[in-house]
Amino acid sequence: MSRQPFRPRTAYRHAHLITTRWMDNDVYNHANNVIYYSWFDTVVNAWLVNAGLLDVEKGAMIGLVVESGCRYARAVGFPQPVTAMLRVAQLGTSSVKYEIGLFSDEAEEAAAEGHFVHVYVDRLTRRPVALPGDWRAALGNIEVR
Amino acid sequence: MSRQPFRPRTAYRHAHLITTRWMDNDVYNHANNVIYYSWFDTVVNAWLVNAGLLDVEKGAMIGLVVESGCRYARAVGFPQPVTAMLRVAQLGTSSVKYEIGLFSDEAEEAAAEGHFVHVYVDRLTRRPVALPGDWRAALGNIEVR
Amino acid sequence: MSRQPFRPRTAYRHAHLITTRWMDNDVYNHANNVIYYSWFDTVVNAWLVNAGLLDVEKGAMIGLVVESGCRYARAVGFPQPVTAMLRVAQLGTSSVKYEIGLFSDEAEEAAAEGHFVHVYVDRLTRRPVALPGDWRAALGNIEVR
Amino acid sequence: MSRQPFRPRTAYRHAHLITTRWMDNDVYNHANNVIYYSWFDTVVNAWLVNAGLLDVEKGAMIGLVVESGCRYARAVGFPQPVTAMLRVAQLGTSSVKYEIGLFSDEAEEAAAEGHFVHVYVDRLTRRPVALPGDWRAALGNIEVR
Repeated sequence: MSRQPFRPRTAYRHAHLITTRWMDNDVYNHANNVIYYSWFDTVVNAWLVNAGLLDVEKGAMIGLVVESGCRYARAVGFPQPVTAMLRVAQLGTSSVKYEIGLFSDEAEEAAAEGHFVHVYVDRLTRRPVALPGDWRAALGNIEVR
Repeated sequence: MSRQPFRPRTAYRHAHLITTRWMDNDVYNHANNVIYYSWFDTVVNAWLVNAGLLDVEKGAMIGLVVESGCRYARAVGFPQPVTAMLRVAQLGTSSVKYEIGLFSDEAEEAAAEGHFVHVYVDRLTRRPVALPGDWRAALGNIEVR
Repeated sequence: MSRQPFRPRTAYRHAHLITTRWMDNDVYNHANNVIYYSWFDTVVNAWLVNAGLLDVEKGAMIGLVVESGCRYARAVGFPQPVTAMLRVAQLGTSSVKYEIGLFSDEAEEAAAEGHFVHVYVDRLTRRPVALPGDWRAALGNIEVR
Repeated sequence: MSRQPFRPRTAYRHAHLITTRWMDNDVYNHANNVIYYSWFDTVVNAWLVNAGLLDVEKGAMIGLVVESGCRYARAVGFPQPVTAMLRVAQLGTSSVKYEIGLFSDEAEEAAAEGHFVHVYVDRLTRRPVALPGDWRAALGNIEVR
């Protein structure tokens, strides 16, 4: 398989530090491929909460993941920390495609690169809702066109 | 987003029962999107171990994930069990693309559908190795062309 | 350290099958000590839900863990399944002490033995509430005095 | 249950920052009780690795957990970070009892307090080995008598 090169850190708009855990590493002594997705989840939702957009307990709108994916280039894992870099790649009426790059301190190149599509729905009916203006504005700030 | 329909159970060649756990569910009371990937990992590696191919501790060859992805259609989660259905979609020289469907008892349609690409490498050098004949034969049995 | 012997399967009142996952195993190729607690959580809450007592989303009462502990005797892990055995050791006004034993198919002796104390609280105020009669009756059925 | 008070930060000898993850929180929107143990594991093993004692892949000696426990006082969870405080409570011939306190920024009092007993064994035979002098010296530095 020939592979598309991975994006550099500078292609992203937001950084989130992740400290790794003993349990992240599997029998091959690197972070299990599954764990990378927990970091994607974390950077996206932390950004949304810290931007004052997502209220996990009481907000009328919640984000459901409808699609995700990851390409893995090099191993990372405990005890080294990882930086998750974030950007918005596509801003739909009620959906957002986020792109994430994972970087360790040891290398300039991304260890992994993934995406994550949220559809924003009404908490109760779970039907898609149009993203309000303050969401669009804030998400637009980390969008890369 | 218009979405491709999901494959039915009959499109797969192997079934693996997964019991869910309290901790699988996130704040929205369904299995977190990350957990689905841990089920992918589980069905693939359990099949490899049970087929007598993968020896996690001593085998000369191990599988590294280079790519994965998932589309989510409906929520599953604790306490309901999930069946992970497996097939081989592509059999390369040293890589295998697995496709997985997740089904709950409650619905005929898949709850999620994903893929997972393993490259088989030498345990020590971590360089790709050609899949031996017994691997190709066994993997061929669950391949769908 | 001299250690108290572990209870046999027959000391318990309820069995719950747990299928293991690739990710359960840590770098030493056995289930990480943390994972055992996720099995404790699972057997207790699954029993409560299946007994019709706990309604995770809408019930007025939820269980909060105030104490837990585990002693480990032998390794278990992927791909072997584990049976979690459960009993109630102490039934207080608003708290319940559960005891759990983990058994693999391969050995008569427990792989691990632990406990888990739930305090039942009002969902909103998070103040302890007295266990209602139907809870006491059902929990009494798996109590060992 | 009347409960022993929890130790303050100053009772410990080492601090380790833990960033929380979306998936840490369960349906009640606080970190699941199981996750706390993954933080215990992390602070102990990170300290051992950073002290130059534990070589996870090649060292002759590895640590196996034979006992653990935790008392929970107040909820912590995503997105707030947690500080895990560590000390050695008992230094045996081949075993070490670690004590850990978990603190959030928001409160002076510990959110949870636990312990964790490692027995150090030969990697291959899994038989206990006496702790070497450099281990005893380093562990002695964070011991509280």
